[in-house]
Order: sequence, then structure tokens, then C-alpha cells
Amino acid sequence: MSNYGECNGDLNVHEKQLEGHDLGENGDGGNGVILGIDGGTTSTVCVCIPFFPSSKTLPKPLPILGRAVSGCSNHNSVGETAARDTLEEVMAEALSKSGSNWSTVHAVCLGVSGVNHPTDQERILYWLREIFPSHVKLYVQNDAVAALASGTMGKLHGCVLIAGTGCISYGFAEDGREARASGAGPVLGDWGSGYGIAAKALTAVIRAHDGRGPQTMLTDKILKALRLSSPEELIGWTYADPSWARIAALVPEVVSCAEACDQVATKILVDAVQDLALSVKAVVQRLSLCGEDGNGSFPVVMVGGVLEANRTWDIGKEVVKCIQDQFPGAHPIRPQPFPLSNLNALNHIAIDSVINNLKINIVEPAVGAALLAWNFMMKESTENCHS
Amino acid sequence: MSNYGECNGDLNVHEKQLEGHDLGENGDGGNGVILGIDGGTTSTVCVCIPFFPSSKTLPKPLPILGRAVSGCSNHNSVGETAARDTLEEVMAEALSKSGSNWSTVHAVCLGVSGVNHPTDQERILYWLREIFPSHVKLYVQNDAVAALASGTMGKLHGCVLIAGTGCISYGFAEDGREARASGAGPVLGDWGSGYGIAAKALTAVIRAHDGRGPQTMLTDKILKALRLSSPEELIGWTYADPSWARIAALVPEVVSCAEACDQVATKILVDAVQDLALSVKAVVQRLSLCGEDGNGSFPVVMVGGVLEANRTWDIGKEVVKCIQDQFPGAHPIRPQPFPLSNLNALNHIAIDSVINNLKINIVEPAVGAALLAWNFMMKESTENCHS
Repeated sequence: MSNYGECNGDLNVHEKQLEGHDLGENGDGGNGVILGIDGGTTSTVCVCIPFFPSSKTLPKPLPILGRAVSGCSNHNSVGETAARDTLEEVMAEALSKSGSNWSTVHAVCLGVSGVNHPTDQERILYWLREIFPSHVKLYVQNDAVAALASGTMGKLHGCVLIAGTGCISYGFAEDGREARASGAGPVLGDWGSGYGIAAKALTAVIRAHDGRGPQTMLTDKILKALRLSSPEELIGWTYADPSWARIAALVPEVVSCAEACDQVATKILVDAVQDLALSVKAVVQRLSLCGEDGNGSFPVVMVGGVLEANRTWDIGKEVVKCIQDQFPGAHPIRPQPFPLSNLNALNHIAIDSVINNLKINIVEPAVGAALLAWNFMMKESTENCHS
Repeated sequence: MSNYGECNGDLNVHEKQLEGHDLGENGDGGNGVILGIDGGTTSTVCVCIPFFPSSKTLPKPLPILGRAVSGCSNHNSVGETAARDTLEEVMAEALSKSGSNWSTVHAVCLGVSGVNHPTDQERILYWLREIFPSHVKLYVQNDAVAALASGTMGKLHGCVLIAGTGCISYGFAEDGREARASGAGPVLGDWGSGYGIAAKALTAVIRAHDGRGPQTMLTDKILKALRLSSPEELIGWTYADPSWARIAALVPEVVSCAEACDQVATKILVDAVQDLALSVKAVVQRLSLCGEDGNGSFPVVMVGGVLEANRTWDIGKEVVKCIQDQFPGAHPIRPQPFPLSNLNALNHIAIDSVINNLKINIVEPAVGAALLAWNFMMKESTENCHS
């Protein structure tokens, strides 16, 4: 299996390569599979990749045997039972799509939002251990760690900024030190997140209605989007469902109003940019990623709907500018907008070969999680050999 | 019953008066009772007063036959089923303490937080109608309306500011026009509320820990109060329980830090004062309560734990200053700190006679609700006579 070569990204060529390399009847080479999971506050993605026990390097592009998408798995947002059910469901579907089953799993790496403390990790490991027998390697990380790995092909160095429904900045120094900022959820001031931006916009509508703040285009835009007839109805709408993702889905309305030069919406986005950049700067400083002179080069992987909006008012681009003002060596790695819905159809096909075709230097975070699992296993195996 | 005179506040004299006025075996004069309920986000209070069908004025002090306290009844905070159960439980207990039962109830006035739209009112009226037969008069108001009535002995004129777990400002002009500001809950920017103040303090602890904000005494103070050992643990603590009141209970820690001159805590309180004053100012302006020259006199009833803290750093006092800077005719009506727990023991005794003794020009909001019910009934009866 180790002679799996690089691929030019041509899907047909890649499929033939897979066919020519004894992938067994499950397409996993008979060696089993690794599951990589990206558990966000909006959705959870699980990918299934083959396990290459004797490889020192992974094939490029990495074959993705199956991919499944489900809802939120952040236990802080939807509660423990729902989060657990979502995880089990998404893994079962990815295995089924790859023609594999639970018994073929060698390792699972779950990058999930809401992991903030060793006790969170332990709890989620416990859930997974109830599903998998003791020989299966299990790794639980904050989703930011998997996202970083997705931009650095599994290497944990540099900084990642996620801004989707939630937001977090996470970094690793070459010597293994790690640091994070934000990621504490909506109650604890993640103002640059999709939820934070949208909640501020809703607040601006209420303030304008009360006579406590300036009038804003956000009122008409948001009421129309939600099919409500008055700002008072926003209150009932807001609390009718505690899901954070539902609020965050209003970000495009805020961006539209800012693009139409609405001052209130513009201020909300400018503040969000500052807040997101500050999270990255705090991590960079604590880890000295920028070197002693402040000009050292380091990657900043940027993922999440807020940063990938591809709009005229480009939040991600503004965040990069703001980071580079202080750290000119910050090297942003941003995925290009990609119709992910199309990916669901590409079962049994190497998804990142498609991404490769588009010359994007990043895989999706679930693949990052799978890469992490493989890296961790290789490291453990090397350590065992030396001990 | 109409010769019920005013009382000098002596409890014994008042009890004798009650005895001397044919209160029937239930102490309700045989005419049944009115229930007044103050449903807040922290607790729900229900009082039971006698129904005086032929009175044009109510006796002073008003006899309170029974009083009960229960948990949160804001459906936006705890959900519909829990809110409904709390209401039924607290009414049953107040009736039981007053020696009455459901069949003696003539009217119920419920002032409850989370009533923001006619549909909220209709829904809660529907709950109550399932308990009470059609001849029982039912009134549902925002808790701010009952709180205003508590400071004006049932007259709906002026402005009220509630700042407890939540906050809201509500006002009535002499001609019946009404207006409100804030009261949209924590997601929609009630930053002057107890929840808002405490959430900002928790955020400040996280920001200091991340390296995104200045160090603050709040870190040690709050971790100690919650018996946690690190700021990371705050995240799990925050989302472990969605109750708003649990977060708001940290306000005294913020006040302590501000009293010790911590700059971060002080800024949080100063911002809260501005926000609360702005809510009142918005209502006053929309209703022109201050008259044409801006100097007209009007009452501002101020209730809720945030305003009644009786601390060196007095949030309520600062709010009054801020309102009076713009509207010198604003006349604050603030209850003095009163050991409400003691009131529970005073069953069958006129509670507001005790309050009267202390020369406090305010009754508790649940009594305000009962007064409102009586006022509404008298108004309807007068209208029926004239029609």
C-alpha cells in the first residue's frame, strides 16, 4: 500500500488507482478504516478513510471511502443525549456509505466544539468507548484542532480561526505548546461568531424599535427573512428554539445590509472583525508564533461560514488584514467556496482529489480529524518501537 | 365593607379591624378572593386578597390573606410546561395559606415576564382558563405593568424600571398610551439586567484568561464563589444549566469588585447604569411623560434585585442620577430593602401594613397585580353600568 502515489487530481485516474491497489471488497484494502469527525455547532461531518498500517506517508490525495453529514453535536448547545445520538448516527452512515461496518474501525478522531476542559474530553471518550471495543484508538479534540490539521495536512503548527455559528482560535507552537482564545460560547462573549453577529443585529432591531438606538435597514431585512411582521415578534421567535445555529443563520442578512452601507450593520461587522483578529493575535502572542522580531512566518487556517462567505463585504479578508497589520508573517490558508452539497454524491470517491483539482491547499476539517488520528497512531507506534 | 378605614400600621390594631369586619370563616368576608401574581424570571409570588365587590376605594392597608413563593414562570426562560406548573402550584399554595380554595376566586391578575406580544397574552390566558371557569375575570400583563401598579397603588401612570434577572422599562401616559423598552431577554441585549451584568463579568474573566482583555479581580472572586479552580471550567459551568437566574446571581460579586475599585467591574456597572437609564429615557420620551418643557413631574417605580442591592456602589441610585440629568421631574419610588423571607411567616396578616409601618410608599409587585385586577374589574363594572 505504501506505493500509493500522488495523483494529478483527475478523478478517473484516481479511481483507477484505487481499483489497482487491492482495496478489498469494502474498498478499505482489507486493513480497516479510520473515522474522522468534525462536530460543529451547526453540523457534524464524518469521513471514513482507509487505514494504512505500514505507511510512513499517506497517499495524496487521500481516498475518502464514505462521508455523512448530520446536525449539531456540541453538547453545550443541544444537550448530551442529542449530541451523542448525532455522533452515533453520523458514524453509522459514513461506515454504511463506505461499505464498511463498526468492526472494521481501527481509530476514531473526533474534533468537536464544546470541548474546553479535560473533563469534556473524558466524557466524550466515555461515550465513544461504549460503542467501540478497547483495541480501537479513540482521540477527542476541540474542533479547532481538527480544523488546524485540515489546513496543514495533519501537522499541528500555526494557528486556526474558526468562525461559524461559534468561533474559536487555537494554536500550536513547534515545541508542542498550545493555546486558545474565544470558543467560550455565546453567553461568554464570542462576539465575532455567526451567533454573536446575528444576536447583535437582532438587538439593534429591538433598540431601534424601542427608541434606544438608530434606525437600521436590519429591521426590514430580518423581519422579511423570518416572515415576521413586527420587532416585538422577534422576542418570541428568538426564545422559541434555543439552537444557536438558527440565530447564526441570519449573518447573510447583516452582510447584505453592510454592503448597502447601513451604518449599524457595518459597525457590527467591523466589531466582529476586530474581535476575531484579537482572538488570533492573543494566541500568536502567547505561543510566540511570530518569532522574536514579530515578523516570523506562520500559517493561519481560516474556516467557517462567517469567513468563507465570498461576499463583497468579506469578513475573512478584513480579519486577515487586521492580523497582518500586527503580524506581517501571518500566512492565511482559506478554503475557497465549494458546493459541499455536491460532495454528498461523491461516495467512494476521493473528495480531496476534487479539492486538489481546484488547487486548494486545504481539506475539510473532518478529513483533518482523520489525518490527526493517523498521525497520533503513527507517533504512538514509533514511541512503542523505541521503548 | 366600605367603611374599612385607613390604619396606623399597628399590626394588632389591623388584625382587630379584620376581625371586626365580617371576614367570614375564610377571612375573605364571604365575598371570595382576588389573586395577584408577580411572575419573574427568578421567582413567582402569588398573593390572595379579599374581593370587595361594593367598595369604591380599597382599604389601606390592604389585607393579604395568603402569600406563596415559587420558581421562575417566564416561559422564554424555563419553557411552557414548567412555567405553567409553577403558576398553578403558587396559586394553589396562596389559596391554601389563606384558607380559601379555587371556587372562591373572583379574579386573577398575572403580571409575568416574557409577555411581549398579544399572542403571549392569549397563550397564558388559555392556560388560566383551563383552571378557572368562565365567570372568573382573568388579566395577563407584562410583569412590569404589575410592578408599576405596585408603586402607584394600582394607578397606571408614570414609568417603571425592573432590573432583576431580566430588565424592562414600561410606562403609561395619563391618556392610556403605553410604551416599553428593553425586556427582550439576554440574547437581545438586556445588558443592564442582572443576567447581562453577570454575563459581562464572566466574559471579562474569559478574556483576561485568553490574553484578550485586562486582568481583573473578577477572576478570583467569581471562581471562588462558584468553587471552580480555573477559568476554563467556567464554560462548562455556564452551559450546564440554561437558567438565567443562576448567572444573574453573580451580580453581588461584580458589585464587590467595583467597590474594591476594580476597573473592569466598574466599567460593567457604569455601562449597565447607562443602559438602564436609556431604557427609562426612551419610554419617557415616547410618552412625553416629562411634559412639553421636559421638566414635568412623573413617578419612576424602581424594583428588582439589581436596583435594591443597598450597597456602597448603588446601581439604582446611579440610574436615578442619570435619568434626572435629563428629566429633573423624574420622581423615583424605590422600595427599601426588606427581609422578604420574614413575610412568609406572616400568613393571614396584612403584609403591606408592615411595609406601611416602615413608611415605604410601595407594595410588592404581586400586590400591585391584585390591585390592578380590582381596578380593571371596577372599571368594567362602571362601563357596564353606563352602557
